[in-house]
Amino acid sequence: MLRSLLALVLALSSPLPYEAHLFTNDTTRNYREAHELAILKELEELLSIPNVASDTANIRLNANKLLEMMGRRGIAARLFEGSGPPAVFGELKTPGAQKTIGLYAHYDGQPVEPAKWATDPFKPTLRSGVLETGAPIAEPPQSGNRVNPEWRLYARSASDDKAAIAAILTALDSIRAEGKAPSVNLKFLFDGEEEAGSPGLPAIARAHASELGADIWLCADGPVHQSRRPQLYFGCRGVVKMDITVYGASRALHSGHYGNWAPNPAMRLAKLLASMKDDKGRVLVSGFYDGVVPLGPAETKALREMPKPDSELMRELGIASTESDGASLAEAINQPSLNIDGLRSEDVAAQSRTIIPAEATATIDLRLVKGISPATQVARVTAHIEKQGYHVVRDKPDAETRARYPLIARVSSESGYPAVRTAMNLPVVEAVIKAVESGLGQRPVLLPTMGGSGPLWILEEVTRAPQVGVPIANHDNNQYSSNENLRIQNLWDGIEMFAGIMKMK
Amino acid sequence: MLRSLLALVLALSSPLPYEAHLFTNDTTRNYREAHELAILKELEELLSIPNVASDTANIRLNANKLLEMMGRRGIAARLFEGSGPPAVFGELKTPGAQKTIGLYAHYDGQPVEPAKWATDPFKPTLRSGVLETGAPIAEPPQSGNRVNPEWRLYARSASDDKAAIAAILTALDSIRAEGKAPSVNLKFLFDGEEEAGSPGLPAIARAHASELGADIWLCADGPVHQSRRPQLYFGCRGVVKMDITVYGASRALHSGHYGNWAPNPAMRLAKLLASMKDDKGRVLVSGFYDGVVPLGPAETKALREMPKPDSELMRELGIASTESDGASLAEAINQPSLNIDGLRSEDVAAQSRTIIPAEATATIDLRLVKGISPATQVARVTAHIEKQGYHVVRDKPDAETRARYPLIARVSSESGYPAVRTAMNLPVVEAVIKAVESGLGQRPVLLPTMGGSGPLWILEEVTRAPQVGVPIANHDNNQYSSNENLRIQNLWDGIEMFAGIMKMK
Repeated sequence: MLRSLLALVLALSSPLPYEAHLFTNDTTRNYREAHELAILKELEELLSIPNVASDTANIRLNANKLLEMMGRRGIAARLFEGSGPPAVFGELKTPGAQKTIGLYAHYDGQPVEPAKWATDPFKPTLRSGVLETGAPIAEPPQSGNRVNPEWRLYARSASDDKAAIAAILTALDSIRAEGKAPSVNLKFLFDGEEEAGSPGLPAIARAHASELGADIWLCADGPVHQSRRPQLYFGCRGVVKMDITVYGASRALHSGHYGNWAPNPAMRLAKLLASMKDDKGRVLVSGFYDGVVPLGPAETKALREMPKPDSELMRELGIASTESDGASLAEAINQPSLNIDGLRSEDVAAQSRTIIPAEATATIDLRLVKGISPATQVARVTAHIEKQGYHVVRDKPDAETRARYPLIARVSSESGYPAVRTAMNLPVVEAVIKAVESGLGQRPVLLPTMGGSGPLWILEEVTRAPQVGVPIANHDNNQYSSNENLRIQNLWDGIEMFAGIMKMK
Repeated sequence: MLRSLLALVLALSSPLPYEAHLFTNDTTRNYREAHELAILKELEELLSIPNVASDTANIRLNANKLLEMMGRRGIAARLFEGSGPPAVFGELKTPGAQKTIGLYAHYDGQPVEPAKWATDPFKPTLRSGVLETGAPIAEPPQSGNRVNPEWRLYARSASDDKAAIAAILTALDSIRAEGKAPSVNLKFLFDGEEEAGSPGLPAIARAHASELGADIWLCADGPVHQSRRPQLYFGCRGVVKMDITVYGASRALHSGHYGNWAPNPAMRLAKLLASMKDDKGRVLVSGFYDGVVPLGPAETKALREMPKPDSELMRELGIASTESDGASLAEAINQPSLNIDGLRSEDVAAQSRTIIPAEATATIDLRLVKGISPATQVARVTAHIEKQGYHVVRDKPDAETRARYPLIARVSSESGYPAVRTAMNLPVVEAVIKAVESGLGQRPVLLPTMGGSGPLWILEEVTRAPQVGVPIANHDNNQYSSNENLRIQNLWDGIEMFAGIMKMK
């Protein structure tokens, strides 16, 4: 009885963990608590500008808004123009500072399917909790400045990645509110096409190599640990996507008149994909794991010490098994992967027709680890497709090709990102870890490799600076789906973390 | 030189094979030649009314138009109301006639995706040939009544199946133009939801069993032989569709953060589908071919005598192999089949995102032959899915189900159609074959079983009458795709075939 009462009290109090962390960054916290509504309002203004990278007009409005936000703070900011959306670059020097810290984030967001959103993705909407558990829309308080930190802000890029930009700029405000300046020189690079694969960033970075020089680049992107503990990551998996289309007849056919006889490309695609992985999740493409650079002792230790929330996560995600053959999530993401992003052949259910489709397409992504380049992995998968009997083409097959080859697969891929990994024991890296710890009042989880991928390999190539990931978003943010959201406490924590970094020794 | 000149002359003359067939039905042909534009105009008016079965308002406009067309010809016509679109029934008695012939067709059409059509699917458009080979839009002649018979009329249902209705009613006109009456009593049944699976037809047919009595029911649906020879068919494969959805996590996940660990439902679906068929096209579902009633001697003979256009078809369709393990198309469609109609999981190519989808769906259709009921075949496929380790559910799985079963498949199916097959040596069947031969001046191809499926099993159940299929549409009519079309000569042939039937001995 006492025990269940205690559980009830804990459950009731858990939405308000104002004191959940032991913060040491008091001045920043005081600043934030006095300005919560204003901080949210500035973020909401930024979120109200649609930001899909292909939406040229709106992307430029975002970039201009960032110039304005940075300019207002005395940051010398300008646009680095490239083939697509501009990168917004800014610099803030502190006289006498010894170190230069680069802060990377991106202002573009994933494409949206508005019909799948509960509210307009570009009308930021507060809810008193998580939409999926029925939390209603909530109005910000009419008096006072405080917002329940378990509320969520719903909008495209609320988490990924405009929240990071808001946290960075607010951290600077909080330091100045003390009458101080950052202890380091700061460089800011806000990418405008990260979700589209940052195709223009390599050229931009190479053109501005000297301006981008820094002692370390910090990547303010990605989620915190699933346990809600802050985390730092010291590498990203690389990634490269492939589209695979297989063909049947040159037009869709009536399945009654031609079924059993004309080849079905959807079945062919199913067999081809099924050949790529065994039932335990191991990729069967020849050589797929060859060349992986093993983790060092510091990384292995970090992996061992990481919290393993696997069973809670499985419950939260509604899955009764994983496909990692017993490996934990943290271990699994240190391996290369092959993932089906989507399948499409004609249509299904009420939209289906009794036909043999003319073609079937799968898009897959290959995540890469240190030691395997995008081109190498694409070549291995392509060779696997050929080994299954397919004639691989780059364009839609013509009549002659069709007449010649029973199995035809059209394969295309982009250049992708290589993996990056920074040694955890470099002095500047250790200084960042300490600064984050000091900002947040707790030791972050140290993740040798982030499962996701980022375009920062080009900063490594251009500046040779080490890189550390400093994410702030809640892990359950739906960033790649509809109803993306930011848990407010994550924004508050992010501000304190960046303030810690800006005050680093 | 002479030879290539001859080829050129043949090529130039081939679009105009006015005398390609040896017709004996001269009066009907004379009537048609004198009224070609008027016949097309009446068909075009009918085609101008959108006719997707779910479009309730327009479907009723179609039914009323048919009542008007039949009433104008003195056919006692009325609507048989059911749960959805009405069936249009009509009757025309000839004093002293010994036989009653039922004529079935349907006035609804396949769903349309207008964006994929070269012209509006409900604005009938003449072209001077086949769209895919670049034939332009053609205007009907301003003087005279003749239309090039190799021209095509593009519209939804131009072939499937309003052309059959036009041919039937025009055949009647041609007999009356001679001052005669049909030699048989006629019943007409025009279905309004065939493309939606005729869900209301069984109840309608049972409610009107006595009115539907006939010596034989002829099904004016389907294509003629791929060689362009007329064909009759004596059975239809049955068909039943199944939707299969398999699940991953309860929401789509970032493939970087969770790839290698969270199960991918698209890969699971690929493996499940791949397990259903071997590389030679044989279905691996246990018992799939059990109970097939073998063909009799007349059917085997007919199969042997059929033209085998397989290699021409393969060229036309752009395929270098079939999945029938050496069997001809005609043989293959006498077997049950398992066909994937469509696949869907998130999206592909430019619309894809680097995610692990939350679910993946396939729709399959099972074609059935005499001896295998829809329910039996669905049960076999469901058992196969269970044998692959899946827990099969009817509804979206809840959290408890998700927590309990690693592999979950949601399976649903409709009631489907059973297969039908009429013995080719029944006297009334032989009389129909002779009447068609007399109408067309050539012996039709006799096809023991049509690959496609129709709702006429319910007429067999209700009336016990034998059934023969009397199709008129060109095989290359795109009936299940965009740009459905009717080759004009096929309409002319259809008129002469139905006139032969209406004059049958």
